[in-house]
Amino acid sequence: MTLPQSLDFSHLYSDETRARKSSPLKSCIHYFQDPKIAFLGGGLPLSKYFPWDSIVADSSLPSLTYGIETDLPNTGAREETCHVRLERNEITKGGDLKDIPLSRALQYGFGMGQPEFLSFVREHTQLVHKVRYSDWDVLATTGNTGSWESTLRIFCNKGDTILAEQYSFSSSIYAAEAQGINVFPVPLDEHGLIPERLEAILDNWNPKTKKPKLLYTVPTGQNPTGSSLSDNRKIEIYRIAQKHDLLILEDEPYYFLQMDHYQREATSRKVTHFKSQSEFLDSLAKSFISLDTDGRVIRMDSFSKVLAPGTRLGWLVASKKILRVYNQLHEMTIQNPSGFSQAIVAGTLNRWGQEGFLDWLLGLRREYSEKRDIAIDGLFKHLPKTPIFRINPPTAGMFFTITIDASAHPDFLTKYSSKPELVELAIYEKTIENGVLVIPGSWFKVSGNTEPPQPSEHKKGSNSNEIFFRGTFAAVDSDTLKNGVQRLGETLKQEFQL
Amino acid sequence: MTLPQSLDFSHLYSDETRARKSSPLKSCIHYFQDPKIAFLGGGLPLSKYFPWDSIVADSSLPSLTYGIETDLPNTGAREETCHVRLERNEITKGGDLKDIPLSRALQYGFGMGQPEFLSFVREHTQLVHKVRYSDWDVLATTGNTGSWESTLRIFCNKGDTILAEQYSFSSSIYAAEAQGINVFPVPLDEHGLIPERLEAILDNWNPKTKKPKLLYTVPTGQNPTGSSLSDNRKIEIYRIAQKHDLLILEDEPYYFLQMDHYQREATSRKVTHFKSQSEFLDSLAKSFISLDTDGRVIRMDSFSKVLAPGTRLGWLVASKKILRVYNQLHEMTIQNPSGFSQAIVAGTLNRWGQEGFLDWLLGLRREYSEKRDIAIDGLFKHLPKTPIFRINPPTAGMFFTITIDASAHPDFLTKYSSKPELVELAIYEKTIENGVLVIPGSWFKVSGNTEPPQPSEHKKGSNSNEIFFRGTFAAVDSDTLKNGVQRLGETLKQEFQL
Repeated sequence: MTLPQSLDFSHLYSDETRARKSSPLKSCIHYFQDPKIAFLGGGLPLSKYFPWDSIVADSSLPSLTYGIETDLPNTGAREETCHVRLERNEITKGGDLKDIPLSRALQYGFGMGQPEFLSFVREHTQLVHKVRYSDWDVLATTGNTGSWESTLRIFCNKGDTILAEQYSFSSSIYAAEAQGINVFPVPLDEHGLIPERLEAILDNWNPKTKKPKLLYTVPTGQNPTGSSLSDNRKIEIYRIAQKHDLLILEDEPYYFLQMDHYQREATSRKVTHFKSQSEFLDSLAKSFISLDTDGRVIRMDSFSKVLAPGTRLGWLVASKKILRVYNQLHEMTIQNPSGFSQAIVAGTLNRWGQEGFLDWLLGLRREYSEKRDIAIDGLFKHLPKTPIFRINPPTAGMFFTITIDASAHPDFLTKYSSKPELVELAIYEKTIENGVLVIPGSWFKVSGNTEPPQPSEHKKGSNSNEIFFRGTFAAVDSDTLKNGVQRLGETLKQEFQL
Repeated sequence: MTLPQSLDFSHLYSDETRARKSSPLKSCIHYFQDPKIAFLGGGLPLSKYFPWDSIVADSSLPSLTYGIETDLPNTGAREETCHVRLERNEITKGGDLKDIPLSRALQYGFGMGQPEFLSFVREHTQLVHKVRYSDWDVLATTGNTGSWESTLRIFCNKGDTILAEQYSFSSSIYAAEAQGINVFPVPLDEHGLIPERLEAILDNWNPKTKKPKLLYTVPTGQNPTGSSLSDNRKIEIYRIAQKHDLLILEDEPYYFLQMDHYQREATSRKVTHFKSQSEFLDSLAKSFISLDTDGRVIRMDSFSKVLAPGTRLGWLVASKKILRVYNQLHEMTIQNPSGFSQAIVAGTLNRWGQEGFLDWLLGLRREYSEKRDIAIDGLFKHLPKTPIFRINPPTAGMFFTITIDASAHPDFLTKYSSKPELVELAIYEKTIENGVLVIPGSWFKVSGNTEPPQPSEHKKGSNSNEIFFRGTFAAVDSDTLKNGVQRLGETLKQEFQL
């Protein structure tokens, strides 16, 4: 089957992108490797002046315990640790295994990323997302924070409007606002962004104002609501994006923290064990990139939540055309991620293998499922049963939310002058006093200018006395989590005099 | 002696900087370390889920051979390698030595940089530059490319003008131009930027147009000319910056590649040996940051040329007020440099010590001096003695230039229609054909709009038929360098029929 080519989206580029020239010096860097040429061209230090002779990184091997139920007998020969030894110069290792030599990892060049790193994430992407057009690729990044900021530079001018979930990761929204970009909120519910609302917004867009160029979304384990977009909604949203020539930016740090549905009854709980890698992969939510046939999706992946944030390493999946533009911007910003990070991560992952990495992710899934259950169990236990509080057990990510009807607060009409945001602030302060920290939902509210394009859209919908808090079960151990949730429940009980 | 406080330069901030809000989430991150609080606030993964148990980095110890002539007897007990072992958790090591534990290096937080890294570069900065105001500090960066791009975002709006040396690092200039910033060229000669010309430009600035906010300069081993600013010129330029309320951005990747003056006679050559660390430090060019009493200098330092480019690690020196603004931007871009890079570099440098690092730099100085001499010797040997060619032996950095009177080319009036740029292009292509690559000077020309502010300034000065090529002695070994320079000389001889 021949896959289609991606479309050209250069009409969506920012003025900056159009004005950006590549350094002419890059046009001759390939002579550096040419044995016929004495390269007196660029200020590259000789790698023999790099101080490091070797780097050794030891990691645990992904545990099979939480992973695939394999029919293969456990031979007992499995090593417990994964030993990566990076040398200054290229050396042949067993089989196909190739490490990034330090002389290359620590040199200039390879702005797209080191080949051994890229080949791993490319193969991983193909396994998981089975991209449906031909000219896609991957590009190494320093993580999704930077990728998002770069995305804004690449596509948006000052005064442009973009779309985002009504509650969204505040740093992402602030990054846009600092650039003078208006962020228009799209309503979401417990299943994520609502396609009908998105379509209504775009269909009724005031023709006198510039239409949004892109939609920013965290589809899986959304930050802050913890919601996850269903496959059907994604298909709908992709169709709307095609109709209105929108790019979709999927920010997916939590993609592999997908869990089974929360079960109230502990006895009926079990973590799904998969019979094969492909069964596990089939169980995952469809990604926007897997639906994409136009090349209008840019996927931001990161190791921050699944290996470690300090790797400052992630990757983009998009059409080659679009990745070239990111690379051109990177030449003026990060150049490329740290060579130590790329060499250590690639060395580790290439030893784990694709299956080992999936196994690692399954292990995380198991850990986070347990933590999620602890948090939600605690909330059900310590929060009185009343429609005032709504607990929203997530099926992915690190976050849960408690939605609260602020008007039920005894002092709502008096002390708080019927202002839900004052109840929210009071509860926030009270919880800290009582030894637990959760984040007020209003901190995530996207409050971009919705006038004049959509004078009526923004007011519709949710109960305006509703507030919510975002908690996470990720950052603390199980005992602290139990205590924290108990303190939270008790604070709310106290506050609402229940 | 009480040092003065830095001045406030917030009136020079860009609109973007003024609009940038810090994430409210950062306002509660300190509770993460508070034992009284169950932190359900932020999406930080537990460090026990980081795969790496240990990282070991082995480097050579800086050689004393090229360093300080010490009176101390060589005890022979000196180890040959420096062994850095980073563990998951903090462990006590001998003496004051503190490594960055992986659980912290690889976690979120420490946007300014890890304390063990910052303390080393802070102490280094104080040793070398003896900053003369009280509230300066250092901030970890991913290198000067990114620091420069951030600087433009922080201070400049679209349509602003900045100043730069007439020939400058093209990537830096293109970064500005892509943002819609005009780069106004300031003439330079073999001693770098000319203060009188800078002052004339600013004194005569058209009052109807916005005055430049900042001067971008590579004072030491300037790219591309290889020139170095004298201390006296720096004092003058700093005075002019004060007079015209300019910020000075000193981009100093080559600062420690300062060498002795080139001697034609090999027999009269000797590399200076210093009797003490302070004698070496006293021999170095004064930096702008060392002259700064206002906090108007922002110094960009990098390990790219003195350790390895792939560390993607450097640091800024500036007032705390200004560094806070960089940090706020970093929260939306890089967050912080790679934890692996910080931990490995800090581990290595803290073992070498300040003196060891200076010793390492002295070793590099020696290596680059030898390479410089090979290149310049070769040019004098292979280029015919004629005023057509001017060889400019550098005293710092990685670059040398050959200035050429293009009008002396036999085909200048005919084939090249009296256009020096056509001669330049022909020579560039010819040298590649003959197996050597050097870079045409015109690639570095700053051609920003100089009308209307300075209608007459730009035309004055240099012979308009002069062209030049930039070569580097850094990127190849000595034999290739010798061959390359010979091919270059022969090509020029051939071209000019000498």
